[in-house]
Amino acid sequence: MCLTKPPGSLGRLEALAIWLAAWQGREPPSLERVGALVFAGNHGVAARGVSAYPAAVTAQMVANFAAGGAAINQLCRVASAALSVVPLDLDRPTADFCVGPAMSEAECVEALQRGAAALAPDLDLVAVGEMGIGNTTSAAALCAALHGGAAASWAGPGTGLDAEGVARKAAVIERALDHHRTALSDPLEVLRRLGGREIAAMAGAILAARERRIPVLLDGMVAGAAAAVLQALAPDALDHCQAAHRSAELAHGRLLDKLGLRPLLDLDMRLGEASGAALAILLCRAALACHTGMATFADAGVSDHLPTAPADLPGDTPASSAR
Amino acid sequence: MCLTKPPGSLGRLEALAIWLAAWQGREPPSLERVGALVFAGNHGVAARGVSAYPAAVTAQMVANFAAGGAAINQLCRVASAALSVVPLDLDRPTADFCVGPAMSEAECVEALQRGAAALAPDLDLVAVGEMGIGNTTSAAALCAALHGGAAASWAGPGTGLDAEGVARKAAVIERALDHHRTALSDPLEVLRRLGGREIAAMAGAILAARERRIPVLLDGMVAGAAAAVLQALAPDALDHCQAAHRSAELAHGRLLDKLGLRPLLDLDMRLGEASGAALAILLCRAALACHTGMATFADAGVSDHLPTAPADLPGDTPASSAR
Repeated sequence: MCLTKPPGSLGRLEALAIWLAAWQGREPPSLERVGALVFAGNHGVAARGVSAYPAAVTAQMVANFAAGGAAINQLCRVASAALSVVPLDLDRPTADFCVGPAMSEAECVEALQRGAAALAPDLDLVAVGEMGIGNTTSAAALCAALHGGAAASWAGPGTGLDAEGVARKAAVIERALDHHRTALSDPLEVLRRLGGREIAAMAGAILAARERRIPVLLDGMVAGAAAAVLQALAPDALDHCQAAHRSAELAHGRLLDKLGLRPLLDLDMRLGEASGAALAILLCRAALACHTGMATFADAGVSDHLPTAPADLPGDTPASSAR
Repeated sequence: MCLTKPPGSLGRLEALAIWLAAWQGREPPSLERVGALVFAGNHGVAARGVSAYPAAVTAQMVANFAAGGAAINQLCRVASAALSVVPLDLDRPTADFCVGPAMSEAECVEALQRGAAALAPDLDLVAVGEMGIGNTTSAAALCAALHGGAAASWAGPGTGLDAEGVARKAAVIERALDHHRTALSDPLEVLRRLGGREIAAMAGAILAARERRIPVLLDGMVAGAAAAVLQALAPDALDHCQAAHRSAELAHGRLLDKLGLRPLLDLDMRLGEASGAALAILLCRAALACHTGMATFADAGVSDHLPTAPADLPGDTPASSAR
């Protein structure tokens, strides 16, 4: 039953429909219940001046999410997605990872569990993202620990650092990597030492989604770092995930290459909040609409056979190379 | 009145909102009335075996559009866009441009005018695309005539030609360029000789949209060729246009580079029918939702000032490079 289009001509929309059907285990797949999960956390390292905004903004933005005033609220409305925001102990930042582990074992496990618990079990698709002042520093540290390379190669301007700020951020990461260098062989230990609660929670949610066969749209750089922890544990851990958007944060493209993920969108965004993932929900909806709504060649009376060899045409000459 | 996000962090979504406002001449812009215009035409050159499908498919697909069974019907539904399909004398293909001009002057002017007339004057945004068996051959010929380069460098598989078919297509284009070589300095004459009715109609619609200050989303390779004719006439002719999607037809990326347009999407699609442009409507809707729905920093009580210099932190040493 071929649909009325040349085979493969809808490109990645076709791949998205197949991916949704495979992970949901039904044909056609459904997008009745789509969620966006945004985890928020605060970072001790933020006190080192690694963000263009003060740490108080994390809680202020959580209030803004609740009031409906953030970008992700508008994007969820357009994408018909239910937004869940999960603030994680915002009044208790993680420890400064330059001088010790960001989280205790109990804190890290709790954040992983809270992430898993936040995932509604009956979702058809979930967009996963975050909010947390200072968390691109944590994400860059995780990337450097998991994939190697100099700290400076993973550190970007985040929400808008100037060149001096980016250099300071890279130096902070370098110092953290040096402090923890003997304890970075286990990905979960890397997460505990260099991550944050919202990053651990995203990892927990992504893992739980796989168990529940819920397809996941990964947001930007920080969500990618959470996913990188899982892939370091098991190479196929992200088979149920699509990278929604390549962040303007330059290192994100490199991270996606390492993860073997090709982003669906590339719109110079660098906001987080699951904003890129929410946009990709729209592409999934378009993919499903084509997959389920189109006529077949037989339905529509459209010829799907190749033409016969072209007839001789007026004006052709024996020397013509037109065939 | 800054919205609650770091400046520029919504990337191209911000640019889209500004572009819509500028061309509509109102703030905020509106997306109440969004249209998709699909022009259909038949090509004499199709008889030379330059498509994977027989020419009869053009009319069959127009019937499929009317019945709601094509991809563009589903995509317009998802994007809340009104679809208008304009078949142009399908029972009267253009002449085979290997041996003469595709259209008479009267035919070309009529197609331009029908394109302009098909554009509802009160649209807020229009997606422009096409259907026409054989028309990537015409588009490639137009590109070669307007921008130079070997025919083979502009000829791709279209709806699915094999390598032999692509070589045949390139040879057909080379032959046409040779036949018309003394008459290719005027872009409109290039259009008349190597174009087709649906391509001329797209050019007419794009031109009319500019006069009426309606922003345009250009679909793929064939719509790009129509746009290229206009830009060859006036370098700023496409200022009201966004390239919606980079087609999997390889030469399209090169054409967009020549036109100075960066595509919004890159999803390996190669269907035409305004399908890529319809997807980009979704991005415009997301952009507008963020532009009009978000709270300001003042509204939301979010700090928008840079943090003060970081305080001395426990564990710092004079040798630390963390600042």
